[in-house]
Amino acid sequence: MSVIRLGYVHIRVTDLARARAHYADTLGMDVVAEEANRVYLKSWDEDDHHSVVLEEGGVGLVKFGYKVTGADSLADLENRVAAFGATSVRMSKGDNVGIGDGLRVTLPSEHTLELYADVEYLGTKVGKLNPDPWPRDGIRGIGVPRINHALITAEDPAQLERFFELALGFRPAERLVGGDEPDDLVGSWMFCGENPHDIAFVKGPNGKLHHFAHQIDDWSALLRAGDVMSMDDVPIDFGPTRHGITRGGTIYFFDPSGNRNEVFSGGYRTGPDFRPITWTMDQAARGVNYTHREIDQEFLSVVT
Amino acid sequence: MSVIRLGYVHIRVTDLARARAHYADTLGMDVVAEEANRVYLKSWDEDDHHSVVLEEGGVGLVKFGYKVTGADSLADLENRVAAFGATSVRMSKGDNVGIGDGLRVTLPSEHTLELYADVEYLGTKVGKLNPDPWPRDGIRGIGVPRINHALITAEDPAQLERFFELALGFRPAERLVGGDEPDDLVGSWMFCGENPHDIAFVKGPNGKLHHFAHQIDDWSALLRAGDVMSMDDVPIDFGPTRHGITRGGTIYFFDPSGNRNEVFSGGYRTGPDFRPITWTMDQAARGVNYTHREIDQEFLSVVT
Amino acid sequence: MSVIRLGYVHIRVTDLARARAHYADTLGMDVVAEEANRVYLKSWDEDDHHSVVLEEGGVGLVKFGYKVTGADSLADLENRVAAFGATSVRMSKGDNVGIGDGLRVTLPSEHTLELYADVEYLGTKVGKLNPDPWPRDGIRGIGVPRINHALITAEDPAQLERFFELALGFRPAERLVGGDEPDDLVGSWMFCGENPHDIAFVKGPNGKLHHFAHQIDDWSALLRAGDVMSMDDVPIDFGPTRHGITRGGTIYFFDPSGNRNEVFSGGYRTGPDFRPITWTMDQAARGVNYTHREIDQEFLSVVT
Amino acid sequence: MSVIRLGYVHIRVTDLARARAHYADTLGMDVVAEEANRVYLKSWDEDDHHSVVLEEGGVGLVKFGYKVTGADSLADLENRVAAFGATSVRMSKGDNVGIGDGLRVTLPSEHTLELYADVEYLGTKVGKLNPDPWPRDGIRGIGVPRINHALITAEDPAQLERFFELALGFRPAERLVGGDEPDDLVGSWMFCGENPHDIAFVKGPNGKLHHFAHQIDDWSALLRAGDVMSMDDVPIDFGPTRHGITRGGTIYFFDPSGNRNEVFSGGYRTGPDFRPITWTMDQAARGVNYTHREIDQEFLSVVT
Repeated sequence: MSVIRLGYVHIRVTDLARARAHYADTLGMDVVAEEANRVYLKSWDEDDHHSVVLEEGGVGLVKFGYKVTGADSLADLENRVAAFGATSVRMSKGDNVGIGDGLRVTLPSEHTLELYADVEYLGTKVGKLNPDPWPRDGIRGIGVPRINHALITAEDPAQLERFFELALGFRPAERLVGGDEPDDLVGSWMFCGENPHDIAFVKGPNGKLHHFAHQIDDWSALLRAGDVMSMDDVPIDFGPTRHGITRGGTIYFFDPSGNRNEVFSGGYRTGPDFRPITWTMDQAARGVNYTHREIDQEFLSVVT
Repeated sequence: MSVIRLGYVHIRVTDLARARAHYADTLGMDVVAEEANRVYLKSWDEDDHHSVVLEEGGVGLVKFGYKVTGADSLADLENRVAAFGATSVRMSKGDNVGIGDGLRVTLPSEHTLELYADVEYLGTKVGKLNPDPWPRDGIRGIGVPRINHALITAEDPAQLERFFELALGFRPAERLVGGDEPDDLVGSWMFCGENPHDIAFVKGPNGKLHHFAHQIDDWSALLRAGDVMSMDDVPIDFGPTRHGITRGGTIYFFDPSGNRNEVFSGGYRTGPDFRPITWTMDQAARGVNYTHREIDQEFLSVVT
Repeated sequence: MSVIRLGYVHIRVTDLARARAHYADTLGMDVVAEEANRVYLKSWDEDDHHSVVLEEGGVGLVKFGYKVTGADSLADLENRVAAFGATSVRMSKGDNVGIGDGLRVTLPSEHTLELYADVEYLGTKVGKLNPDPWPRDGIRGIGVPRINHALITAEDPAQLERFFELALGFRPAERLVGGDEPDDLVGSWMFCGENPHDIAFVKGPNGKLHHFAHQIDDWSALLRAGDVMSMDDVPIDFGPTRHGITRGGTIYFFDPSGNRNEVFSGGYRTGPDFRPITWTMDQAARGVNYTHREIDQEFLSVVT
Repeated sequence: MSVIRLGYVHIRVTDLARARAHYADTLGMDVVAEEANRVYLKSWDEDDHHSVVLEEGGVGLVKFGYKVTGADSLADLENRVAAFGATSVRMSKGDNVGIGDGLRVTLPSEHTLELYADVEYLGTKVGKLNPDPWPRDGIRGIGVPRINHALITAEDPAQLERFFELALGFRPAERLVGGDEPDDLVGSWMFCGENPHDIAFVKGPNGKLHHFAHQIDDWSALLRAGDVMSMDDVPIDFGPTRHGITRGGTIYFFDPSGNRNEVFSGGYRTGPDFRPITWTMDQAARGVNYTHREIDQEFLSVVT
């Protein structure tokens, strides 16, 4: 598989200053670049230039980027995208601050996904020589270490799953199915490496973002994250709780513009031989929120 | 202070078999005695005969018992209760299985509270000789170690606080006040030793139980407790979350009859010199549920 | 019982600047007063003026102070100390910065213990009005919340246990016995309230300090504490591990002068009806270090 | 990369019954197959037939197996092994219970490593349909979920690193270097997917095993694991502590024959673009044991 991981999420925010405060002070990301209407941020354990881009004006997903293994991968992916019948265009170094040449793909679900191999290397805050496990003087707020995954909505999840499998080489770890037909897919959680998910999608309007997530250390870090959210008056959707799907610990919350964020801990190890898990609709609530076995209406309906 | 701690809670349950399964298999308490319509249970780290009594028929609190330091204390407490203007009667060994002579007090809030010094000693599951920190072969379900506190409702919380302070020697750790008058009390969390609370009450109907709580080890134990609740289809009210009041971690949930339970972790150390904390009504939601800053209607209205 | 808790430990340090850096920057205590050769510190969750005093010159315990419930208690304790045959003198407000009138007792083990009821109130860092669970801008290093207990050495532990029981009203939670005689006492862990221990002592030279301990939140806090010790090159004696005695989690470490510190988590609830636990010498290593079941020579021999 | 993960470790044990008790009752693995002189075990979250083989007679590593993506991978790996100048032979289905055709490679370090794509599928204990996060009735002892990595010794670590990189497609996450020459390699921690390490080796005798590790959930699980080790009198080498290398939490301990085991938690995410971390010898102790910054002689010298 040539796709490595989610590299960045580029979102719209209604108020750039408030959004910056949220991502920098509450989540603890570092601002690495600024433009008139954009702020670029990275987390302390990330090497690459940025993982979140905030753009003033509106709300919701502009696009997201996945890093691939090299220029050869880009050419191969371009062919596979075309073979699937999806469209893509080449993008050039400089189209995105810090990002090299790449491929801009329009997903069957109408989202814009960028693939790139080269990105400016900034390095983590603990460095590569005899590093400490965390940067003592470099943690603010929650102190999220790194971005983990995004969950988007699609009118045809089965089609999008085929696209991610055939064109991009992802595999499903967990699948929520609606009925007796295996292709009656309500949601899919797919990985490109060894994590439970690098991308996920559920049935919903095309082109929308449900949430994107930062990985944090463990369940104990979720308690502290929730404390910081309270101190900063961050609206929580739900959590701390456990997911059935992925087994992870979670808090869902909102940035000041209404884009949903997640802090996520745990999960298990997948890999190319992993046989997918199936969730049926009668257990969907347990899949999303294992502890409570309920899904509130807001969780289902609010996307940006 | 001569009151030591909450010893037992005696509640009504609609279905004794289902209640027994909940307290024994989900919470992991041990059945120590049975009568036709009653089951007595203790937890693994408790020395005394029982901490929960289930009585078939209805729902809600029958009475609860606090252990005191000795017969002298009982006599002293009897006088203080009378001086306050409350009523009490002597109870005899055998009135309650395993419990010795004592005093049955009718609180100003119409709850029945029993005070006793003697109780049959059964001992913990790890014993008193070179003990392990937990009983490897003696944990079922959540495996609650011990009862911690009860929260009841009262029409006049300020009067009940005075009673617990003057007649029983408790002190308030945290007080929720409704307005500018210090005596406009909405709730009080009171202790008799060094914990944040051994009894608590909030404004509501006289004679009712809001919940009683078992202490568990820490925040990590709450994740596992929530998993077990999901496995056993236990309805959760809310949590895992952090309380502002007491700083504790919590899950509120219901037994099959609708009596509210809590598993509670953490807290801080009080003592006779502790100056009480004040919560104002605009921050009450943060006091109850620090993480989420919201109180659902069910939490406010459901008492048994 | 009229003794409330360990209030302060007053120790000698070889280098005041280095000691100050250790207690303020690594442990995270706040300096509240300074004299030419002394530094006074308190932790963020403590109300009273100070809990550690550092005095330049040498190493080891100068004295320690336990807070009592009031002036009446002091008079009563003075009589009980005299009845035991131990000596005490009255001390006056101002003899110790921030501390009121009191009683200076020479223990049978030759340690100096001060008892006092009045102490200047500074308050915690989260305050008493709608408090956060921890001070977001007030944590440095490990961020210890409060002092917990001291462990001293005594040539005659059985005599010292009788003194703490008869003169000061403490009770033993756990006892390490050397042989078949119950009075062949090697160590005792005693409490005055509801914690597993407020004072402990083991057989050794009179007048010496083995360690004093700060309570921290839980086992997760011990991992972070160990990280900070590594970052600051603090020598660790042993831990993170679990104690058999008290069940607590622990790291033992040394300040720059060689005084042993501990960070301690967990424990269980005692009280006036608690029946003591007995440890036999063949299980002593498990009692001290439950996880490893071994005691290094340094732990046994290094006292200050 | 076509190697997926460590699949199994096959070790010699002096006493099969005692070894079986250790891996089945203390670690909590399930016996899936038995022969006269061998026991095969898997852990609850593993799909494949077995992850540990115990063979009576002696002590130390017989061989270990890594799973690869398919038959094509085996042919490719065979060529790359030969191109490196190492030797391999084909092995057939049935040579190992439950394992299909494969390749038996003699590492430059004289260890035997088996590569295979097909293995009998047994499935995890929680299944693939609406699974619980852990098997409530299927946890014994520590309850290790899955094997994670092995650390072996080699006379020429630099040569072995080249072999794993060129012939097997691994990459180094962390490297311990002995001097100014980058090729003066003392140890290397290498991955084939996204974990910090799937294989590691340090300078030492060829053909020897330092330890193999099971992944457990988090730091809290290490406390409980240590408790179980104490209950079962398992000798601990060191830990709970944090590694500098990998950032993981760890306990090293021994099976009854003296083979070193590890329970390991945490770590970070690597990937094909990960730039390796360098540890220098003056910080080696911090790398191995971040918390304590010391390595005992036994850790360095005991291999099997």
